[in-house]
Amino acid sequence: MHGTDWRVWFALEEERKEPGRERDHQTTTMDLHILDHRLRVTSISKNGLENYTHPLIKLIFLRNRTRCKFFSLTETPENYTVVLDEEGFKELQASEDLQVEGSVWLPLNVVSNGNASSSSQAVGVTKIARSVIAPLAQQHVSVFMLSTYQTDFILVKEKDLSVVIGTLEEEFDIFREVGGESVPVHSPCEPNGFQKNGKEALQPTVHPVLIPLNQFCVMSLDPDTLPAIATTLIDVLFYSNSPKEGASSAPSPPELDRVKFFSFSLIDGYISLVMDTEAQRQFPADLLFTSSSGELWRMVRIGGQPLGFDECGIVAQISQPLAESDISAYYISTFSFDHALVPEEDIVSVTAVLQQQRKEPAAS
Amino acid sequence: MHGTDWRVWFALEEERKEPGRERDHQTTTMDLHILDHRLRVTSISKNGLENYTHPLIKLIFLRNRTRCKFFSLTETPENYTVVLDEEGFKELQASEDLQVEGSVWLPLNVVSNGNASSSSQAVGVTKIARSVIAPLAQQHVSVFMLSTYQTDFILVKEKDLSVVIGTLEEEFDIFREVGGESVPVHSPCEPNGFQKNGKEALQPTVHPVLIPLNQFCVMSLDPDTLPAIATTLIDVLFYSNSPKEGASSAPSPPELDRVKFFSFSLIDGYISLVMDTEAQRQFPADLLFTSSSGELWRMVRIGGQPLGFDECGIVAQISQPLAESDISAYYISTFSFDHALVPEEDIVSVTAVLQQQRKEPAAS
Repeated sequence: MHGTDWRVWFALEEERKEPGRERDHQTTTMDLHILDHRLRVTSISKNGLENYTHPLIKLIFLRNRTRCKFFSLTETPENYTVVLDEEGFKELQASEDLQVEGSVWLPLNVVSNGNASSSSQAVGVTKIARSVIAPLAQQHVSVFMLSTYQTDFILVKEKDLSVVIGTLEEEFDIFREVGGESVPVHSPCEPNGFQKNGKEALQPTVHPVLIPLNQFCVMSLDPDTLPAIATTLIDVLFYSNSPKEGASSAPSPPELDRVKFFSFSLIDGYISLVMDTEAQRQFPADLLFTSSSGELWRMVRIGGQPLGFDECGIVAQISQPLAESDISAYYISTFSFDHALVPEEDIVSVTAVLQQQRKEPAAS
Repeated sequence: MHGTDWRVWFALEEERKEPGRERDHQTTTMDLHILDHRLRVTSISKNGLENYTHPLIKLIFLRNRTRCKFFSLTETPENYTVVLDEEGFKELQASEDLQVEGSVWLPLNVVSNGNASSSSQAVGVTKIARSVIAPLAQQHVSVFMLSTYQTDFILVKEKDLSVVIGTLEEEFDIFREVGGESVPVHSPCEPNGFQKNGKEALQPTVHPVLIPLNQFCVMSLDPDTLPAIATTLIDVLFYSNSPKEGASSAPSPPELDRVKFFSFSLIDGYISLVMDTEAQRQFPADLLFTSSSGELWRMVRIGGQPLGFDECGIVAQISQPLAESDISAYYISTFSFDHALVPEEDIVSVTAVLQQQRKEPAAS
């Protein structure tokens, strides 16, 4: 861990705990950091996971054996999405079970570093909906979101970086992390050289959504206690689809209206876990922690057909109405679909908003 | 665990702790149990191990997910020897990295159940050298030995079982464990129907031996604390041949005159570990335990060329001189070679005995 990251993370932690200190995007000089990771977005087929047990266990549990600093694994009913840096990526042998998105992706991170007061209590992707997500959608930049317990990573394609900088530099001081240093960056051309789209109406495709019944928790764990949950985590990640032989009772039938979703990330030494309450019960209660409010989250899965990686505005489709209603949300993109997690008590209003949106797509 | 096993194991534990209670083989009615496991002896190539990470981690750590009750994994410089019952074996997919010995093997176990005094303090294979190992060698029965922290398993081929029973029933009360019951067994024919070899001289091939410099420990672990060493054990078993990326200093060069040897077994709920002192230092000191004497062991590796599975008398070649000198020994057969572990303080005399034997093979 280099010093800069600690500062960034500390600021973020504070922000999550004290949302009142968060800056309003309209008054801001917030910082945007382009982190020092070159990421690949990959997918492992359901049946192929066991062939990747060896490298994945190394990346998750054996920090001494890898230089990988950015690792995320998310199980969905369709596949396992693995997002990881180049050091991690070289551990994954090519096979017919591994799909690799062609781009290099760079993670962006918004850092609030001041004392400004905010009108919004919402956290997560909601907080950056107007300042980051909407402008990028308007400039036709596709994003891949990865919310964790600690922060929200906005992944953009490396080839889009100059457009990203040109789009966001009015709103943010932009820094690029290079070997532990934060280097200010500006649009490569003169200030007006970047040709922005005008304030044209943003009309993203409205994708169908699915709202499963599971309740989710977003949790973290002291990395030093990761070994203590290793066998449970291995069981849940790698063996949850095989039957329990020792169980005396018959396995409970899969519930309709629930969706398998489990996400683990280990990024710059920080662990984040997203799981439903059923998975949570398998872990020792005293090691995983969540925010003091201990709230539960419901999922909105976005997409009827796999979304691909080129369409822009998908995150905006969800985050804008959430921002209008000031509803917090985590947002996790995967290889096939996107997933927003909203507070359980807000799911009814979120559902209403999204149904309304399907009927009459809103102009921005 | 069924009740019978508990009794057997308890008796064995007592015996290990109080060698004075052990019966002398000449005065005995010791019991021999044919355990209720049908075993396969397999070998995984060094480079192929990672392809078997998924099933092996399941067999080692996830007792709820498997019915396998007999599992042993031993790393040697040549390969990984995996001995396991049929429930475990069906987890291992065929591949060019997996060699499978053709026979079904049955584990035998000697149980001392009485109060007779003994002239011998030695434990392990030494204790059964005269009563089991020598007679089986004389009847051309090949054995595959597997000593653990708790006991010594003598594996014989299922097809040799009637010869084994005929050979050993004079010396032992023989029981077959069937579904938790101990059923007395006798030679299938009338007492004299089994044609024994006479008291002809036993002259096994004398194999070259290798005596590496490592010091070994034979240890155990409460199965409930296995999760606490999971990441260390996974690291040692599955990743010890890949470099440590995080290590600041260069890896130490492999020492000449040392041999890689690490054995883990989980048999009927009991864990046994054999490792050298270098591997031991990677484990938390408070979880693994060894006998109160805490002694260290030196290895005698038997065989210049891989031994195969048909030759008989290999174990006898080592265990008889040890019995004559009353030196304890663990004995672990692997796919390629056999390994005896003798107390560190006895290695000089053992070496002398074996050198003598090479010059003039002893008649029994």
